[in-house]
Amino acid sequence: MNAESAAAALNLPPPPPKGGVYQTVVIVGKTAYVSGHGPYLGEAGYMSGKVGAELTLEEGQKAARQTGLSILSSLQAELGSLDRVKRVIKLLGMVNCPHDFTQHPQVINGCSELFAEVWGPENGVGARSAVGMGSLPGNIPVEIEGIFELAD
Amino acid sequence: MNAESAAAALNLPPPPPKGGVYQTVVIVGKTAYVSGHGPYLGEAGYMSGKVGAELTLEEGQKAARQTGLSILSSLQAELGSLDRVKRVIKLLGMVNCPHDFTQHPQVINGCSELFAEVWGPENGVGARSAVGMGSLPGNIPVEIEGIFELAD
Amino acid sequence: MNAESAAAALNLPPPPPKGGVYQTVVIVGKTAYVSGHGPYLGEAGYMSGKVGAELTLEEGQKAARQTGLSILSSLQAELGSLDRVKRVIKLLGMVNCPHDFTQHPQVINGCSELFAEVWGPENGVGARSAVGMGSLPGNIPVEIEGIFELAD
Repeated sequence: MNAESAAAALNLPPPPPKGGVYQTVVIVGKTAYVSGHGPYLGEAGYMSGKVGAELTLEEGQKAARQTGLSILSSLQAELGSLDRVKRVIKLLGMVNCPHDFTQHPQVINGCSELFAEVWGPENGVGARSAVGMGSLPGNIPVEIEGIFELAD
Repeated sequence: MNAESAAAALNLPPPPPKGGVYQTVVIVGKTAYVSGHGPYLGEAGYMSGKVGAELTLEEGQKAARQTGLSILSSLQAELGSLDRVKRVIKLLGMVNCPHDFTQHPQVINGCSELFAEVWGPENGVGARSAVGMGSLPGNIPVEIEGIFELAD
Repeated sequence: MNAESAAAALNLPPPPPKGGVYQTVVIVGKTAYVSGHGPYLGEAGYMSGKVGAELTLEEGQKAARQTGLSILSSLQAELGSLDRVKRVIKLLGMVNCPHDFTQHPQVINGCSELFAEVWGPENGVGARSAVGMGSLPGNIPVEIEGIFELAD
């Protein structure tokens, strides 16, 4: 199954509006750099709250998955088709959480597992860091940026 | 107007001294990787304080702009001319702020708007993440790292 | 002295097991993207604690060095030999510390000095950011991710 048909089964939000002076996706040669995304829901705006405080681990994982859906929506809008992505190179997964939170990888897995569904367990899974931020814009629970390799 | 003449109208600080074991700029092929910079003022050292606590949003934006000026100064010293930069690929904008701060994108816009002045609204504006750190070196309010594409 | 003989004098831990859905190293062309690593000790697990609270600056530097040893072990396992690395392009050094901590560069130097021992003071030292996180997975004191250029 290709990425577009995998994505068709998902409930992708519209591409998130820009919240500052940046470009959502920048393409240089065969590399796409994707700006930090949050868990955008469409008309309802963004999920918010700190994971491990207002949000449970499970809610944090859902927020990471929703963030991944937002990234897919932006990539689809930019590239025309998710099939143009050859592989995930790298993600930086940032969790908004209290200073004693320890389960950042489990949270960000919510996004990584989504990308594995879309591009497969090899190409959909790249290098990654999962870390804890003091705060995030608009108090979103998760922000994820990524680097993707494009097909020839 | 080219980047060098745009920069001539700015009050660039001297290139900041290194504060650790790293290189300020590393060039690989047509890509320049720029180390995390802070708001360096020259002889007066660095601006300091947390945005949303000791510093207002407006002061944070000024700190982000000053950080951008420091990056320009380092790039100019390394490349000889800012005209050698083809475009901004990506910025990671890190704000030192309390855990309830929410306006990170507005802060980092201070740097992004500067780069748009220098390289234009298309090439000067790249992908970006704007996030909140628990702390930064020397209690600087902002640290920004970047990736730039060089002209042929 | 080449990198492998330099590394032979070090006490490398085994490559750390994966703690989530990611690949430890992703290679695209001549570039290796290395996932965030922590101070892995082998059977004893990971060092833990916040630098500037449970851990002193010196212990934080040791944790950064141990994190560097973990990265070397992962690179060796992935590439077969550390001699295949041409240079360090960039590190993102993340310190788990209280909000008033200021000596992040000194902490991350523990890793940067190690890489300078292995690949030399020019190729072993890349661009870098050193910043303070609100929290890190499993309360590890340091997490470092990196981008490396591979030899032809």
